[in-house]
Amino acid sequence: MNLRLPLLALLLTCLTVYAQNQQTDWEMRFRDIPAPDRISAYVQRLSARPHHVGSAYNKDNAEWLATTFKQWGLETRIETFDVLFPTPKERLVELVVPTRFRAALQEPAVSVDPTSGQHSEQLPTYNAYSIDGDVTAPLVYVNYGIPEDYEQLERLGVSVKGCIVIARYGASWRGIKPKVAVEKGAVGCLIYSDPRNDGYYHGDVFPRGPWRPKDGVQRGSVVDMPLYPGDPLTPGVGATANAERLEISEAKTLTKIPVLPLSYADAQPLLAALGGPVAPEPWRGALPITYKIGPGPSKVHLKVKSNWDIETIYNVIVTIAGSVYPDEWIIRGNHHDAWVNGAQDPCTGLAAQMEELRALAELMKQGWRPKRTIIYCAWDAEEPGLLGSTEWAEAHADELKQKAVVYINTDSNGRGFLGVEGSHSLEEFINNVARDIIDPEKNIPVWKRSQLRQIANARTPEERAEARSRPDLRIGALGSGSDYTAFIDHLGIASLNLGYGGEDGGGIYHSIYDDFYWYTHFADTDFTYGRTLAQTAGTAVIRLADADLLPFSFTNFAETVRLYVDEVKRLLKNLQDETKERNRQIAEGVFTAVADPKDPFVPPVAESVPPHLNFAPLENALETLTKSADHYNQAVKKIQKGKISLPAEVLRTLNATLIQSERALLSAEGLPGRPWFKHMIYAPGSYTGYGVKTLPGVREAIEQKRWNDAEAQTIRVARVLEEASSVIHTAATRLESAVRR
Amino acid sequence: MNLRLPLLALLLTCLTVYAQNQQTDWEMRFRDIPAPDRISAYVQRLSARPHHVGSAYNKDNAEWLATTFKQWGLETRIETFDVLFPTPKERLVELVVPTRFRAALQEPAVSVDPTSGQHSEQLPTYNAYSIDGDVTAPLVYVNYGIPEDYEQLERLGVSVKGCIVIARYGASWRGIKPKVAVEKGAVGCLIYSDPRNDGYYHGDVFPRGPWRPKDGVQRGSVVDMPLYPGDPLTPGVGATANAERLEISEAKTLTKIPVLPLSYADAQPLLAALGGPVAPEPWRGALPITYKIGPGPSKVHLKVKSNWDIETIYNVIVTIAGSVYPDEWIIRGNHHDAWVNGAQDPCTGLAAQMEELRALAELMKQGWRPKRTIIYCAWDAEEPGLLGSTEWAEAHADELKQKAVVYINTDSNGRGFLGVEGSHSLEEFINNVARDIIDPEKNIPVWKRSQLRQIANARTPEERAEARSRPDLRIGALGSGSDYTAFIDHLGIASLNLGYGGEDGGGIYHSIYDDFYWYTHFADTDFTYGRTLAQTAGTAVIRLADADLLPFSFTNFAETVRLYVDEVKRLLKNLQDETKERNRQIAEGVFTAVADPKDPFVPPVAESVPPHLNFAPLENALETLTKSADHYNQAVKKIQKGKISLPAEVLRTLNATLIQSERALLSAEGLPGRPWFKHMIYAPGSYTGYGVKTLPGVREAIEQKRWNDAEAQTIRVARVLEEASSVIHTAATRLESAVRR
Repeated sequence: MNLRLPLLALLLTCLTVYAQNQQTDWEMRFRDIPAPDRISAYVQRLSARPHHVGSAYNKDNAEWLATTFKQWGLETRIETFDVLFPTPKERLVELVVPTRFRAALQEPAVSVDPTSGQHSEQLPTYNAYSIDGDVTAPLVYVNYGIPEDYEQLERLGVSVKGCIVIARYGASWRGIKPKVAVEKGAVGCLIYSDPRNDGYYHGDVFPRGPWRPKDGVQRGSVVDMPLYPGDPLTPGVGATANAERLEISEAKTLTKIPVLPLSYADAQPLLAALGGPVAPEPWRGALPITYKIGPGPSKVHLKVKSNWDIETIYNVIVTIAGSVYPDEWIIRGNHHDAWVNGAQDPCTGLAAQMEELRALAELMKQGWRPKRTIIYCAWDAEEPGLLGSTEWAEAHADELKQKAVVYINTDSNGRGFLGVEGSHSLEEFINNVARDIIDPEKNIPVWKRSQLRQIANARTPEERAEARSRPDLRIGALGSGSDYTAFIDHLGIASLNLGYGGEDGGGIYHSIYDDFYWYTHFADTDFTYGRTLAQTAGTAVIRLADADLLPFSFTNFAETVRLYVDEVKRLLKNLQDETKERNRQIAEGVFTAVADPKDPFVPPVAESVPPHLNFAPLENALETLTKSADHYNQAVKKIQKGKISLPAEVLRTLNATLIQSERALLSAEGLPGRPWFKHMIYAPGSYTGYGVKTLPGVREAIEQKRWNDAEAQTIRVARVLEEASSVIHTAATRLESAVRR
Repeated sequence: MNLRLPLLALLLTCLTVYAQNQQTDWEMRFRDIPAPDRISAYVQRLSARPHHVGSAYNKDNAEWLATTFKQWGLETRIETFDVLFPTPKERLVELVVPTRFRAALQEPAVSVDPTSGQHSEQLPTYNAYSIDGDVTAPLVYVNYGIPEDYEQLERLGVSVKGCIVIARYGASWRGIKPKVAVEKGAVGCLIYSDPRNDGYYHGDVFPRGPWRPKDGVQRGSVVDMPLYPGDPLTPGVGATANAERLEISEAKTLTKIPVLPLSYADAQPLLAALGGPVAPEPWRGALPITYKIGPGPSKVHLKVKSNWDIETIYNVIVTIAGSVYPDEWIIRGNHHDAWVNGAQDPCTGLAAQMEELRALAELMKQGWRPKRTIIYCAWDAEEPGLLGSTEWAEAHADELKQKAVVYINTDSNGRGFLGVEGSHSLEEFINNVARDIIDPEKNIPVWKRSQLRQIANARTPEERAEARSRPDLRIGALGSGSDYTAFIDHLGIASLNLGYGGEDGGGIYHSIYDDFYWYTHFADTDFTYGRTLAQTAGTAVIRLADADLLPFSFTNFAETVRLYVDEVKRLLKNLQDETKERNRQIAEGVFTAVADPKDPFVPPVAESVPPHLNFAPLENALETLTKSADHYNQAVKKIQKGKISLPAEVLRTLNATLIQSERALLSAEGLPGRPWFKHMIYAPGSYTGYGVKTLPGVREAIEQKRWNDAEAQTIRVARVLEEASSVIHTAATRLESAVRR
């Protein structure tokens, strides 16, 4: 057999080079097509009127999208689901003690901004999935309302039992705030936008600048997304017309207490009236007041009542059938629903995706046929809790588990640097894409610009050296907050989330001011980054759709998991060290000696030091993973070095194996207490919501001091890593035997 | 000779033990005497009316102090000097573009506060020693107005040439702000109190709480104190009636541009009207505005005109003649002048000092006679620039150089932790004092409380380990800002500065609200820390006055100098590393790639890397110092172990040598460009003013990139360290030979 190799190799090399050139050619043609003017026009059309779930213009947008895609010659359908979507009927926030003040709960129109006055179609300011309630209670300021804030409150001797808490937006997914508040005994929750976070502290406010004006309010869902996203009434299954539904009272993801959002104009009188201890420095915002904690003397009356309606939602789905591997799907999505006009969120992402799609349609007119099936999705109902994508993923779970190769998500766009989070088996792949995309401001590859920023921002010489020398820039891990969640966390489909940003700040998120006027004055005003996003995501789609061998690679993945393992070990070690040190300081009398007797202070009590845990199974599995990743890497290198082409049948089996590498990371039981989340490497944190917890089962068990669970989870993670290693090893062996043939 | 030792030793041991017991007994009796009620009464009397330099009540206070001390049976005199002291004739700050706004420049009376309404006697808000001027120019916000702020401005492409700068109080001695502004081409300077620094950001404002109200203004001197303190017209000599005086136009310490201070109510309209780049995050204060830099569009009209009068100042001097060593002086001081009523600053420090003095007078009535002469001083004219103490020190320079053992300073007092800065040859001594003083809030030694705080605040495990294990807590080095300056920096008299604080914040510094009402509502309200300060400083005075062998010790000093040497070496190394790294990033294109094209930005230019410098002379001198310190330490230990008492004549010579150990650290030429400052180990920074620069000649030369100077200064420092080593070595040898006798 070896004797025949040279000739075959030569022949295949020619074919490979030809195919590669042709591939490059299609990609280059593709990247020439997206046009900023068109993106601008799409955004303007899509954001012309409020288009939240259930609104007339939401449906109108879905239909317009479908019609447009069809006009481009694409096979398009609208898939509907019926989901629970509450909208406000009554909202009241008033200070009743020590003075009376009634919150406006209303964002005023701005004269220069043409869509800001569409009051009749705008959803009022509210937090979706807050339960109905009517409470009057003393107020307590809880900073961001995350668990560490309550630890501080404990040190200050402040309890929120029977109180209404007021938290500021930031530091966590907003749904965490009422969730933690309930655990601590609060009876109501207000969430406000502090000017320190996205108001005048950062720059001029709208309409003079991009930042949040005093009456601007962040709407948003407060559903318990880390428990499960999607329709609260149909966990785990698609919310089709005939799906079995929970009663509203049975839905575990609704809040337990009433919640409303506030502008800082509405929040200031409430906060200013608080007494009690002065808030710790990191808690203080930018209002011209002394931030105090309470409880009281401010007493607040909070009332929320919603229409608990079932609404139809409209996912727009485009299918481009694959010519060689029709049963391997590359899925691409961005939502189309907004809280109000939503020019930036989501229309700028959606419009870029539209331009990708138009460009692909153009390529097809020029003769291009993708080898794999490409599915483009415009999701509905992302804002209330990822409903469109989740219900679709649940409804098509079986088929997706078989066929889905990769899911690529976007969700709004801005100006600046490429941001990437995703599966680390795609890290090398997306780095290669980024090397071929040109930054419109600097005329250098977006990859290069990101690398230079990493050099600039490195906090240590080691980080800087890595930024300079590591072949690939590290990508973030996926938490939650957009439509990739069901794909990666529930179904184990390798996913990426892409977007540009970092240069244009702003404070119009989820307000009536997120509109075409704002975006074209303060963000990617000429939509050149819209084009860049279309080029980036579209190039990724084309490359994935046409690759002979799917471009997964596992050495970066294994190296990244090693970082995570080191992190959880260090987390435990730090907890041990901190507990020991704190116990020692308690014994020395440090806390009582240092405390100012005029300030409220409750000294900490000694705690038992966390035990040592058995990380060996995890470490052994990691060794296996690293070996299999190297093995696969070596095999691929041989192919590339030998410029060897493989027959389609071999590739089919090989690729099918590769697709399983991410599925292997799921555990059927899911995470402790939230079985919908099945990925053992990535998950949104139970108490972060957006923020990722890697090795979530292990990490959260340690954070929450559940030591037995931590060890049990270690074993589960080890198991999925071994399973993935076995898949990767199989792929490597197949590759090697194909080479030997 | 050895044969006689046992008997002699026994005899001397008995005497020593007896003497020690008696000593302890006097100390204990002393510490029982100071009474909070009396301290309260002194503060109330001293702060009853405004008593700035030249005011009627200032002279009245001096006379009352003298009369009181005389009544206590103490030898008291008033020493006067005649100094330049400008007071305001015209003050104007107005915004003329884009809108008109005239600053009030006036602190209103507060109804609950009885002395706040004494307007006719209050000095208006102003910065003393600002030259007269009348300028109208665009405004630029320069943060704290220190050199690194101007580096930032350069990166933002902002020049202050021809502009009026507005800086906030903080981060430096206020006189630095106009000094740097002039170097950068500014024509006027405003200094305001941002609520972020001492206003509502921290707590309730006066009269509801201790923090600065919106109209509160910090008065203060802006004389170029790091050039020389004291009367601007008589540098280096006492401002006696017949002293030779400079013309005002020749006085180099006056500002070069007009300067006025502002309240935040007055500053806000000026700042709010600024355009230009948004200020970097660390520059932003707590006003409810977007902090921008300018220049303009705000244009400001600033006018200052003063009465340039010569005023008589009154130092009150008490002498308690020493019974054994009358020509060894222990000097103790606190100023009595204030900007307005000055209850905290300086009366709380002064009142504690009065109670010390009363207690010493009591002891004398009971038969105590200090071995050394004790001189208690109530200085005038500290506020305008340390005039009372400096002129006195200059006038008595020759005698002080011969006789002064130690100077102990206080300047106002508060609640909380003992703060100590001073000569490190006194570190062990003052630690021992602190071990014997009881904290009134916690009933543990103030030393212990400080140690526990150091454990609590340690930033690294190493710092924490040191806090736990080092026998002595580290004391700070002396910069400037109070009356110790002439003693340590000009005359080389070992000094200490003491005060309690850290628990009571406040924003009344140098305003009309620093009065008895404020202090008794928000600070050390019952004056128990006033008593503690009297106990602390008084114990130090008694111990120094009565010690047979002066309690200098040099191992901590040598170890501390080693830290400083390491610091300046690291400073150079860091500068080298930073320059190399920045040059590399410039070559890589990092700065231009990362910059947002919509933001103003001037990329840095490559600079030559700082050369390596010869630190060997310094390091060799340090070895010598360390050896001599150990030598002396061993000798003292032998004395202590053998409980050996030394004859008075031996002690006299030995102590005279010890006194020289601090004098040896002076260099006759003084520091580069400021020959008045002669101490080679400690000095206020040329661009910090209050903040100390240790090894100032070397450190500032490196900071200012004067490499030749840096090496020259290294040699000078080496020389004084060798001189000090020789003194210490001589003392050790004398001690050893005394033991052998």
